[in-house]
Amino acid sequence: MRWPMDQPTDRPRPWTRNSLADHIESEVVPQVVRSGRALPSERSLSETLGVSRSLVREVLRGLEQRGLVDILPGKGVYPRPPSTDEAARIIRRTCIADGVGVNDLIESRIALEGRAASFAAQRCTPDEVTALALTLDDRESSQDFVTQAAATVAFHALVVRCARNPVLIALHASLGASTFESMIRAQLPTDLSAQISHEACDVVAALATRDEQRTAEALLRLLELERTWMNGPASRPESLVADALHRAMDASTSVEDFVTTTMIRYSPSQVSRRVAHA
Amino acid sequence: MRWPMDQPTDRPRPWTRNSLADHIESEVVPQVVRSGRALPSERSLSETLGVSRSLVREVLRGLEQRGLVDILPGKGVYPRPPSTDEAARIIRRTCIADGVGVNDLIESRIALEGRAASFAAQRCTPDEVTALALTLDDRESSQDFVTQAAATVAFHALVVRCARNPVLIALHASLGASTFESMIRAQLPTDLSAQISHEACDVVAALATRDEQRTAEALLRLLELERTWMNGPASRPESLVADALHRAMDASTSVEDFVTTTMIRYSPSQVSRRVAHA
Repeated sequence: MRWPMDQPTDRPRPWTRNSLADHIESEVVPQVVRSGRALPSERSLSETLGVSRSLVREVLRGLEQRGLVDILPGKGVYPRPPSTDEAARIIRRTCIADGVGVNDLIESRIALEGRAASFAAQRCTPDEVTALALTLDDRESSQDFVTQAAATVAFHALVVRCARNPVLIALHASLGASTFESMIRAQLPTDLSAQISHEACDVVAALATRDEQRTAEALLRLLELERTWMNGPASRPESLVADALHRAMDASTSVEDFVTTTMIRYSPSQVSRRVAHA
Repeated sequence: MRWPMDQPTDRPRPWTRNSLADHIESEVVPQVVRSGRALPSERSLSETLGVSRSLVREVLRGLEQRGLVDILPGKGVYPRPPSTDEAARIIRRTCIADGVGVNDLIESRIALEGRAASFAAQRCTPDEVTALALTLDDRESSQDFVTQAAATVAFHALVVRCARNPVLIALHASLGASTFESMIRAQLPTDLSAQISHEACDVVAALATRDEQRTAEALLRLLELERTWMNGPASRPESLVADALHRAMDASTSVEDFVTTTMIRYSPSQVSRRVAHA
């Protein structure tokens, strides 16, 4: 089943800027995303919907600002594939405004990842198991706390991806940047790091044998260890975190972009390429 | 613990439009949200950050378009309290693009609501239990399928709100519009409706007695009944759905706005007012 569109109706309606934006977003863009073509022209939209071209143009610019479409001058308006980066920003902003703590974040990850782990054990592929093992290698072989945090976030995102549920994946991805940030702020003691490696290996082993219960249990134990990490007593100084992020990311990258790029680097197709070139 | 901001650094950096927008969004806006004041003036931002006023103005307009700030001419730029409406839009858009089905949506709600139910049983207040009972009364006494769906969505949102975890609430809220839409599309047979009422009453009774396990179990049974509802064989004709939505919402309202308004109508404070006036 596909989601129905917003109130399609034959009756002429008094378009406002908001209702027109909603209509184009939820009716026009999805059709075009599926077809792979450009949106209808400004002129065509203005004639079909009975509104001025200037209103259509204004609304399209608003959609471009919100990252829904790309306006390519002289070529047309193209829908941008959906990304959960923006959802991650909103969730992170809500977290900041509400003074959200590590425990709220971990509770939500327990809910999502606990359920996802069972599905992952049913549905994962051998390539995905290889990719998971590689994220662990990278985390363990690196001394840099930004790399360690990024590899850890990628590990969990991959487990959820194995569950093959796009809604779970999108919801979980929206927590990636917040998780990453609280990890790079907290020191990871060596003994805790070793325990985390041990538990994460157990998750991979359980997934490889398709053992649902053992996967879910190992993942929940891993999350409890990460809770200890993220709640750790000795927070890193702000300036050290800032410098490390500055080295890891170029100036135009946001934390959300960085986490998304990290997840792509550890995707099964990228990992296969790395393994083939090794 | 509060979330750290994006790389605050003393080094001058080459601002791009994107990095400046990120900086203002994740560093400047959160500080102001907490203080309750307006953002620093355009002039002040341009001097502090070493960028042109026109770039600052452009970036602020972009943030306004994305619903992060309100620009009040002559008064200043004020942060808008975060809302998960936009996250709901993004999740819904992802669902549309990925051709997400009812089962993906229910799996995600099982993950979030199953865990939230346990916390809700520990943390809910008597007013919240009253509000939950009221949403059930409204659902049962209405013959209108839009009202029935809206009250059902509000019921689940309230249960999650009782869990007192802002991250769980935000993630769950982002599924509200998609859930509402799949409910108004599907016929709800009378016998299934009666079973749903029965199970939902059991959730309320279990919450009132603070029985974690019984709450979670009743909620999961309720979700299975809703899965049957939303997967129902006889989908309503598009035109009927469109007309009913048209009657329920004014022209400038999106489905997300409508669902948000519904949740506010059933919030404990609004319900107390209704009960006091009855």
